[in-house]
Amino acid sequence: MASYLITGCSRGLGLAFCSLLASRPASEVGKIFATSRKESAALKELVDKNPSKIFSVHLDTLDDASIKAAAKTVEAKLNGGTLDILINNAGLCEPAANAAAMNNLEKHLSTNVVGVHLVTQAFLSLMQKGGLKKIVNITSTLGSIEMMPHYASTGLAGYNISKSALNALTVQYSLDLGKEGFTVIALSPGWLKTDLGGKDWADLTVEEGAQASLDKITGAGKEQNGQFMNIHIKGWEKPKGGGRNFYDGVNPSW
Amino acid sequence: MASYLITGCSRGLGLAFCSLLASRPASEVGKIFATSRKESAALKELVDKNPSKIFSVHLDTLDDASIKAAAKTVEAKLNGGTLDILINNAGLCEPAANAAAMNNLEKHLSTNVVGVHLVTQAFLSLMQKGGLKKIVNITSTLGSIEMMPHYASTGLAGYNISKSALNALTVQYSLDLGKEGFTVIALSPGWLKTDLGGKDWADLTVEEGAQASLDKITGAGKEQNGQFMNIHIKGWEKPKGGGRNFYDGVNPSW
Ligand SMILES: NC(=O)c1ccc[n+]([C@@H]2O[C@H](COP(=O)([O-])OP(=O)(O)OC[C@H]3O[C@@H](n4cnc5c(N)ncnc54)[C@H](OP(=O)(O)O)[C@@H]3O)[C@@H](O)[C@H]2O)c1
Ligand SMILES: NC(=O)c1ccc[n+]([C@@H]2O[C@H](COP(=O)([O-])OP(=O)(O)OC[C@H]3O[C@@H](n4cnc5c(N)ncnc54)[C@H](OP(=O)(O)O)[C@@H]3O)[C@@H](O)[C@H]2O)c1
Repeated sequence: MASYLITGCSRGLGLAFCSLLASRPASEVGKIFATSRKESAALKELVDKNPSKIFSVHLDTLDDASIKAAAKTVEAKLNGGTLDILINNAGLCEPAANAAAMNNLEKHLSTNVVGVHLVTQAFLSLMQKGGLKKIVNITSTLGSIEMMPHYASTGLAGYNISKSALNALTVQYSLDLGKEGFTVIALSPGWLKTDLGGKDWADLTVEEGAQASLDKITGAGKEQNGQFMNIHIKGWEKPKGGGRNFYDGVNPSW
Repeated sequence: MASYLITGCSRGLGLAFCSLLASRPASEVGKIFATSRKESAALKELVDKNPSKIFSVHLDTLDDASIKAAAKTVEAKLNGGTLDILINNAGLCEPAANAAAMNNLEKHLSTNVVGVHLVTQAFLSLMQKGGLKKIVNITSTLGSIEMMPHYASTGLAGYNISKSALNALTVQYSLDLGKEGFTVIALSPGWLKTDLGGKDWADLTVEEGAQASLDKITGAGKEQNGQFMNIHIKGWEKPKGGGRNFYDGVNPSW
């Protein structure tokens, strides 16, 4: 019975994680802390339907005071229990015509890297007493520096750079926390039909991405500490229809 | 006759670059723009000795206005000429007991990543008309995500993450600017006896690192665009005396 805390649950992948986890038996999934900087109607509806399972908590990953307040709230709700799985999902993705034209690099680094660090810092003590100790940073294969020439002009320089930095943050944490039995991973959830991924162009539904991500998260143990993972979707082991993405479940190179 | 602009020339590697370049014949090295946020006595002395070669220019990589003002000053001094080689050398390195204890991540990202981006952005138009078009970002093998377990607890999480992000920035620029004939590389200058590297512990003198770096910079052509380079020092192809660094001239993995 694992407890979860997920950031960015107002919509997209974070909301889909909450919805899928809420449908699992209580023997498998315990308390779910669905955090958002502004509770959306969809999140409220999900919480109202599962009042003993999902708890909506205010948390803006850019605001350290709100993160610390959320940690206090969660600690009280855990009532002596521990936090088992932290999913750093909140993220920002804005375009840039090209690298030199980028005017949003700092913004991406703040949300996608520093925000993840501050959240992890704040919830660590609640996890250290737990049994599972999993920290999952939702990254992207676009953050693979090795693969950047494969994706070439994504028009997302700031986003891509921030995800490379997030991968490095993941490894730095994994090296320190591995000694304490933590599993810290960077997981690419696939190109999903969310506001961020683009509802018309993306490869996978958000449910497919969320399910395949949870499979990876559940399967990851201490031997996977420090790894960069790609989801596995049957039939998607190679790019399809002239696309560049594939979901073979094999760890991408950095 | 290549013109150079180097950031962070008050001391350390930046100052050593200026000193070595100033000693080269005019047929090889043209104008050298030695930028610093505060001109040091050592830089002033070097400029005073080479008044027709080295020009001291105020530039704080964290202050976009000072960067833009520096670009105007350099443009005037070039007097219709072009800037050939930009070396983004200014950097910050502060310790952190471990990843979770890190309170300087934002600071490292600002100086070592965003600062490099702002400088590159500002000087690009002066380079686009030039023949050489080389942009060199001084990185570190500590930024190799693949090698992080090799270095394990460096106590430099924020620094390491910022250099991974700088590597990603380098590749994003290389993909866009490669089409215009630019060579954009990330170069690790070795562990050097500077304030940053530690005068007592580091492997190499700053002159050795500067010379080996200039060898790489001079040797890099368009085929090297987008590469991550390690310097080559004869006899240092393998770590020495229980250390972890090596300078084999082979590109590290990302
Ligand atoms: N969709 C894809 O194709 C794809 C591919 C690879 C990786 N990813 C990653 O998956 C994660 C989720 O993406 P998504 O597709 O679900 O994106 P999305 O639909 O745009 O949702 C982003 C979520 O992050 C939240 N968020 C952003 N900044 C925040 C902050 N400062 N504090 C708290 N929450 C914040 C948003 O909250 P608000 O509603 O308040 O804005 C929203 O809940 C991101 O890390 C993204 O990079 C997505
Ligand atoms: N030394 C090593 O072992 C080593 C190894 C790998 C990579 N590197 C890289 O090599 C580069 C140079 O390092 P170093 O060893 O020469 O370090 P250093 O001796 O500490 O010198 C750092 C230089 O950067 C300047 N600087 C810092 N922030 C600045 C800013 N905001 N604006 C303008 N200048 C700024 C400093 O100026 P002030 O004097 O005004 O502070 C100084 O000139 C760095 O990028 C470093 O990461 C060094």
